[in-house]
Amino acid sequence: VTFELNPQLEADTFLVRDWPFCRVLLMNDTSFAWLILVPREVGLRDFHDVAPKDETNFLGEINQAARRLKVMTGADKMNVAALGNMVPQLHIHIIARFESDAAWPGPVWGAFPAIPYEDQVAKDFIEAFNGFEN
Amino acid sequence: VTFELNPQLEADTFLVRDWPFCRVLLMNDTSFAWLILVPREVGLRDFHDVAPKDETNFLGEINQAARRLKVMTGADKMNVAALGNMVPQLHIHIIARFESDAAWPGPVWGAFPAIPYEDQVAKDFIEAFNGFEN
Repeated sequence: VTFELNPQLEADTFLVRDWPFCRVLLMNDTSFAWLILVPREVGLRDFHDVAPKDETNFLGEINQAARRLKVMTGADKMNVAALGNMVPQLHIHIIARFESDAAWPGPVWGAFPAIPYEDQVAKDFIEAFNGFEN
Repeated sequence: VTFELNPQLEADTFLVRDWPFCRVLLMNDTSFAWLILVPREVGLRDFHDVAPKDETNFLGEINQAARRLKVMTGADKMNVAALGNMVPQLHIHIIARFESDAAWPGPVWGAFPAIPYEDQVAKDFIEAFNGFEN
């Protein structure tokens, strides 16, 4: 059985890149700088389902994504969360938060309808993320 | 400088125990089986602030808490999240979610006012958690 991205995640995001353990996605919502990491393993659902052999990559990729996004955006706070109440495939939200953002200090999920990117803006964001050295 | 628990976390929780890296707290809200893990290090704010030397303990303790809580409660899904928009001290929410719970499938934060435990019920919960072998 090979990895397939959940159709809802596919519909809601742009592909950023594949890292050794996770697929990196950009949420198609200009309201927040919002990445989603999806382990490319079949059958993972909860955060604690990641196998011990994969934990170093898993945590390393979460931290790398959060650090890049924080430096790129100058965020006040990073939100990191594995919820999965709606989409069962394990996925980790990494969201740059600002004291000035529309949902602050509440959570972003369900706060507002997504405002989609113009394609070029999403491409520029992805290029900046992928070109980032740190 | 020694570790001190943030006063808001102190006010909102019961002490469950100290693990090697984190303090384990029970959120004083009977609406959800809800633990909070607080690394006992000074100055941590974001999830990615945990030092590489502590990552194994950090992830291991999150997973251990989530597994115990899932087995104890029979939860449909575990939510794991580091938000910290209101309380700056790094803390990880670990929440047992049910398709039948009041906030499902939305997030629990800010959904409802907390309904405090009766002391004995909280004590029983903590004893069960601490006595759990897995």
